[in-house]
Amino acid sequence: MSRVRVRYAETDQMGVVYHANYLIWMEVARVEFCDAAGFPYRDMEAGGYLLAVAEAHCSYRSPARFDDEIEILTTVTEANRRFMSFHYEMTCAGRVSALGQTRHIFLGRDFRPTKAPESYLKFFEA
Amino acid sequence: MSRVRVRYAETDQMGVVYHANYLIWMEVARVEFCDAAGFPYRDMEAGGYLLAVAEAHCSYRSPARFDDEIEILTTVTEANRRFMSFHYEMTCAGRVSALGQTRHIFLGRDFRPTKAPESYLKFFEA
Amino acid sequence: MSRVRVRYAETDQMGVVYHANYLIWMEVARVEFCDAAGFPYRDMEAGGYLLAVAEAHCSYRSPARFDDEIEILTTVTEANRRFMSFHYEMTCAGRVSALGQTRHIFLGRDFRPTKAPESYLKFFEA
Amino acid sequence: MSRVRVRYAETDQMGVVYHANYLIWMEVARVEFCDAAGFPYRDMEAGGYLLAVAEAHCSYRSPARFDDEIEILTTVTEANRRFMSFHYEMTCAGRVSALGQTRHIFLGRDFRPTKAPESYLKFFEA
Repeated sequence: MSRVRVRYAETDQMGVVYHANYLIWMEVARVEFCDAAGFPYRDMEAGGYLLAVAEAHCSYRSPARFDDEIEILTTVTEANRRFMSFHYEMTCAGRVSALGQTRHIFLGRDFRPTKAPESYLKFFEA
Repeated sequence: MSRVRVRYAETDQMGVVYHANYLIWMEVARVEFCDAAGFPYRDMEAGGYLLAVAEAHCSYRSPARFDDEIEILTTVTEANRRFMSFHYEMTCAGRVSALGQTRHIFLGRDFRPTKAPESYLKFFEA
Repeated sequence: MSRVRVRYAETDQMGVVYHANYLIWMEVARVEFCDAAGFPYRDMEAGGYLLAVAEAHCSYRSPARFDDEIEILTTVTEANRRFMSFHYEMTCAGRVSALGQTRHIFLGRDFRPTKAPESYLKFFEA
Repeated sequence: MSRVRVRYAETDQMGVVYHANYLIWMEVARVEFCDAAGFPYRDMEAGGYLLAVAEAHCSYRSPARFDDEIEILTTVTEANRRFMSFHYEMTCAGRVSALGQTRHIFLGRDFRPTKAPESYLKFFEA
């Protein structure tokens, strides 16, 4: 479970959170998820693997506002040596604010698709 | 057709455009599309209608980089008094960089779903 | 003392944090500072006062990177019924990353300069 | 002279442009200025020189709003083999919206201060 608090910078003139920011929150949650799984992004990139976003989707249910606390529940929905997918449930005061999905592809330093080491997968099998 | 030039601010440490920025470019293209259709966002909001994002999707094909010029071809795929949907083809030097979709719902000033005036639709019938 | 952890979205292709993001962190720290002082932004805006940024300055000392934890020490350097100024020391692992200042002006709902209630000042006298 | 049109994403719940975005516009103007001077950023980085921001300042005069067109007049105020400084006048419909300054330091690929080639300076002597 990750938590973000809505920044003033993240609001727009409608008085609610600008929609693209939810993708950034998903990234925050994904990074924390990977950390908790013992698989930090930072180390992965240092090891020569990039987990590039291939697809992103967000369905907006209830607008979040400045200063709200958003809870993000992240789950892995696909994990193999080529792709990883995540699902995110973002809630605010117990109410679903948005639901998101991202799909990622492992790239090497040359930006070409590659296979992640077998050892990476064990982190997500639990 | 809209054009954006990739800002330094829009890149990330992978050396390419951070994925959430494509949603912002879609917004730029959508605003220009509505202007060209004789239906400016600004006037619509002044008239009491908000066109809130209900859903957003982006499929990333080929990474864009700093200083690249992105061309965005916007098409309306749904238009009625409650919802509007747009499709975006984002290309860079003739190559598809990303494909996006957004779905929008008309809200009143109270943030409740509403019906847009009949007159709005004629703009998108061409 | 506020803490932010560097988001991937906040990096640029130099591999470090894009400079404009420090202004956003200052805002995060300022909001938390005001909360701790018993003077929440949210309530202030609800009460009809906007604390608009009149001036911002940042001096960059040592680049922050993805996943770094930044500590921000905020102090009030000016507080009267028209203006407030803050100073921010942003450190990363004990090393100064950046030093910032912002000056703010109280505006009414009409965006004109106004005088904040006398009661606001007591929060910052400690 | 550079031009940017205010994006919806750049507004905040005050209904005006969020202050950190002016720093991004300064970057857009600086990049275009360097291009016009025959000194593209892209080439400079490809050549192994980074022009890192050492200091940034912005004084906000009149708020810009969604869809406004901002004109940015950029001038070089310091140029030597170690540092470059720029001044930016940002106007909207003939009215000064903000005034900015940035100071930059040349860094090598190792992020250490370096001296830019003598040849770089000729671009800014006009």
